[in-house]
Amino acid sequence: MRIDFVTLFPEMVLGAVGHSILARAQAAGLAEFWATNPRDFATDKHRTVDDSPYGGGPGMVMMAPVVHAALESLEIGAPGSRSCPVVLTDPAAPLFGQREAQRWAHEERLVFVCGHYEGIDERVRERLVTEAYSIGDYVLTGGELPALVMADAVVRLLPGVLGDPRSHEDDSHADGLLGFPLYTKPAEFLGSRVPEVLTSGDHAAVARWRRSRQLARTREERPDLFSRADLRPDDLGLL
Amino acid sequence: MRIDFVTLFPEMVLGAVGHSILARAQAAGLAEFWATNPRDFATDKHRTVDDSPYGGGPGMVMMAPVVHAALESLEIGAPGSRSCPVVLTDPAAPLFGQREAQRWAHEERLVFVCGHYEGIDERVRERLVTEAYSIGDYVLTGGELPALVMADAVVRLLPGVLGDPRSHEDDSHADGLLGFPLYTKPAEFLGSRVPEVLTSGDHAAVARWRRSRQLARTREERPDLFSRADLRPDDLGLL
Repeated sequence: MRIDFVTLFPEMVLGAVGHSILARAQAAGLAEFWATNPRDFATDKHRTVDDSPYGGGPGMVMMAPVVHAALESLEIGAPGSRSCPVVLTDPAAPLFGQREAQRWAHEERLVFVCGHYEGIDERVRERLVTEAYSIGDYVLTGGELPALVMADAVVRLLPGVLGDPRSHEDDSHADGLLGFPLYTKPAEFLGSRVPEVLTSGDHAAVARWRRSRQLARTREERPDLFSRADLRPDDLGLL
Repeated sequence: MRIDFVTLFPEMVLGAVGHSILARAQAAGLAEFWATNPRDFATDKHRTVDDSPYGGGPGMVMMAPVVHAALESLEIGAPGSRSCPVVLTDPAAPLFGQREAQRWAHEERLVFVCGHYEGIDERVRERLVTEAYSIGDYVLTGGELPALVMADAVVRLLPGVLGDPRSHEDDSHADGLLGFPLYTKPAEFLGSRVPEVLTSGDHAAVARWRRSRQLARTREERPDLFSRADLRPDDLGLL
């Protein structure tokens, strides 16, 4: 998989990529990461990439033409090349979730367009990108961290990136529920002992306990997820 | 504000901090960032920080004692020092939102504990941290990007970090609605013109148009937010 970041801060993105699972995926030849700076496509001598908003208001808005030129340079959808998702990071878009990560994990290429400053000219969203997502209901200074978050969620799903493919099965959100509590050595820590069932050797009991904790935790912490989760017939006895 | 990251990957966190609004805040003396590695508190010769989960299953679990020792070294809550939020990044926790960012922006110190590998021993959550948040319904390889996301959301709210304090007023999520569309030069791009009202000079009309776009966009893209938003009496006429 090739992932392109269109960003005014390529050093930040490539720096973060260099110290994480993304770096390991790149070293193993499973993914590669590129950054393209719209500033390199500015046509005036000050290399302008932003200007004040039409209609007034604070802050600066990223200009559409430089983003467009940066995207054109990537030759997505050029004759002979398949088109791919061009994803805008945008606080005013639907929420990114595990389903999008799973869908994008089948792509050969992904492009993330990172907004910055007050925002990005609306015509980028209307004309140049294929999808737009927000990573959560909070405001950030730019789209670089959101693009890295989405890239991390996708790349860890690529075959071979995580050591043990079973690691995905128990993920929080993999089946619409939060994960179960995990414990490791020591058996006692600050007077708190590991739940007995986990050291019982009774695998069926461990599985029942974990599922019951997933159900209880999801119902308590995230009733919105719980109401949408696909429950199994056995779950009723565990609630 | 001082922000501490407890992380197995201090270079990743401090590297990302070095190229962003966080760097600018640090250079301006408004915030400082520190990273503490639990591995430095491992007591065996292999500097072990993780082990396999009790009860079986794939992956490794971060051990509680090394996280505890790292937190103790920060002297939070030591005699004479005020305690502060100690925040665990955790996919099985409530969702972080703008409200938490606003609340934490009043603190003098924040500590983020970054989970990694399959997860972190549950006793860390029960005993050592004061709050736990997830940044969204997707699975990541570690808590470093979530901690950076939360730090970015907080630091941009500190007085003096963003050039123009009015920048906060129009933020997506600041009042429970998504932001309005932004446009800047050129007036025409790829055949698409800036909406006429924005170049009319009629400030009241601009404000009405922007509010109506906020309402429509939120209702369309995020009905869940729309149903919880605080609407003004005037809004009904704009829908």
